[in-house]
Amino acid sequence: MTKPDFAAITEATIDRMAEAPNARLREILTIGLRHLHDAIRETRLTETEWDAAIAFLTRTGQMCTAERQEFILLSDVLGVSMLVDALNHAGGEGVSESTVFGPFYAGRQPLLAAGASILKRPEEGTPLHLRGTVSSALGLPIAGALVEVWQTAPNGLYDVQDQEQPVGHLRASFETAADGSFAFETILPVSYAIPDDGTVGALLKALGRHPNRPAHIHFMITAGGFRRLVTHLFIDGDPYLESDAVFGVKSSLIVQPQALADGSLAVEYPFTLADAWAGLDG
Amino acid sequence: MTKPDFAAITEATIDRMAEAPNARLREILTIGLRHLHDAIRETRLTETEWDAAIAFLTRTGQMCTAERQEFILLSDVLGVSMLVDALNHAGGEGVSESTVFGPFYAGRQPLLAAGASILKRPEEGTPLHLRGTVSSALGLPIAGALVEVWQTAPNGLYDVQDQEQPVGHLRASFETAADGSFAFETILPVSYAIPDDGTVGALLKALGRHPNRPAHIHFMITAGGFRRLVTHLFIDGDPYLESDAVFGVKSSLIVQPQALADGSLAVEYPFTLADAWAGLDG
Ligand SMILES: [Cu+2]
Ligand SMILES: [Fe+3]
Ligand SMILES: [Fe+3]
Repeated sequence: MTKPDFAAITEATIDRMAEAPNARLREILTIGLRHLHDAIRETRLTETEWDAAIAFLTRTGQMCTAERQEFILLSDVLGVSMLVDALNHAGGEGVSESTVFGPFYAGRQPLLAAGASILKRPEEGTPLHLRGTVSSALGLPIAGALVEVWQTAPNGLYDVQDQEQPVGHLRASFETAADGSFAFETILPVSYAIPDDGTVGALLKALGRHPNRPAHIHFMITAGGFRRLVTHLFIDGDPYLESDAVFGVKSSLIVQPQALADGSLAVEYPFTLADAWAGLDG
Repeated sequence: MTKPDFAAITEATIDRMAEAPNARLREILTIGLRHLHDAIRETRLTETEWDAAIAFLTRTGQMCTAERQEFILLSDVLGVSMLVDALNHAGGEGVSESTVFGPFYAGRQPLLAAGASILKRPEEGTPLHLRGTVSSALGLPIAGALVEVWQTAPNGLYDVQDQEQPVGHLRASFETAADGSFAFETILPVSYAIPDDGTVGALLKALGRHPNRPAHIHFMITAGGFRRLVTHLFIDGDPYLESDAVFGVKSSLIVQPQALADGSLAVEYPFTLADAWAGLDG
């Protein structure tokens, strides 16, 4: 019947992990529990609020399916995905910046020939010629790098979200040529709303936040001896560049498409990969 | 391509909530996000580790059903439930201590007469006569208080976990008499393992922790004008009193059953409730 000793509860929880065989798990949970308990103390959380948090997490898990990962969305809109990205991709001088992976990667797609279109059906969007190069931080071209790309259709949906789209529409893999180049035909991407009919959408609404992401094309570039690059190219002028729902925009990733005589657009971007050993002790 | 500014990510996430219409939600998330981001920075969490955390949370949500709440279990084994309890039930001089609610309450049960048995079938356990009083912090008896009790069968399972048990077995409600007393017949409770076939069980195993709780009977006592009391009585001598998987033990809640001539046991306990207005500005 003495005053409750809040710190004692935290310490008891941490002491109980003393025998954890995995030292890293123990480290993560020791740090994580201290911050979690601190947050609860600092908010003076009520039981009703904690019940609501548990119900929110439960519904978030229950919304997840093979096609939908609501916890990744939650991590994205809370800035956690970008923080984990920043911690793990310090990058360094002359290396392309990374951004969120997102929940819409659909696995490795068939390799297309250089210059091929990634559309599996015609779309009304503005034709866009995308040309890139992949090189090392020192500027040497990387041949045979795997370049995976994905983007939404003009309706703002990925093929995996939209039964009407052919499977694999607006997704493809390419291999860089001897000079490190790759190229494909696509359409200008559009801004889109992340799925907002679930717990994350409800949270955004409660926070007075919109669910929109500025127009972008996803890139994942893999090459032996280099760190994998997961990034986007964003399109200059998009109204959501300053307020991306998942905090993914970095200025070095914004491109300005060039208008061609036939009304189509062209983008060129030089991707540079960090050496595999780079930044490991950053 | 400058050094990533980790703090800027956190501040951007918090700034984005500036328009949140609910000030309390904004406060909770501002504090929560700072601690969450701090924890991730401090652990230097890898992408693989964050992926594993997301998979863990997803599976935890997916294990939840009408009969099972794995997130409450998680909150319990991480000491969070006891912390929230401590924050919200400062109690005060002369008031019974509270403990975790747990996930096995099954709703209001029918009222039984004073002294009735809460068993719906015979059990092999040692007969236990439980007698209690409910009074205010000043010692005045509280008549007509609702006393709800629940405990496991000798196999360590609650009726809701065990198809073999009659529904409502070892659960009941009582009303206190004019002198604040109530009484019922039951069996000595046993220690039991919390459900450990899910994500929480896997976590405990990875942490080198056992899933056991010392023997206890749950009580929830409600009376107009008083703060509801959610607590247990624990049985002295139990081997898990020092290592309750959910950190629920408080010494004031440990009782020493008295042996009667016929081999049965008796426990008496004086419950005292805080006034409804008590501790609100603690
Ligand atoms: Cu913290
Ligand atoms: Fe996207
Ligand atoms: Fe229990």
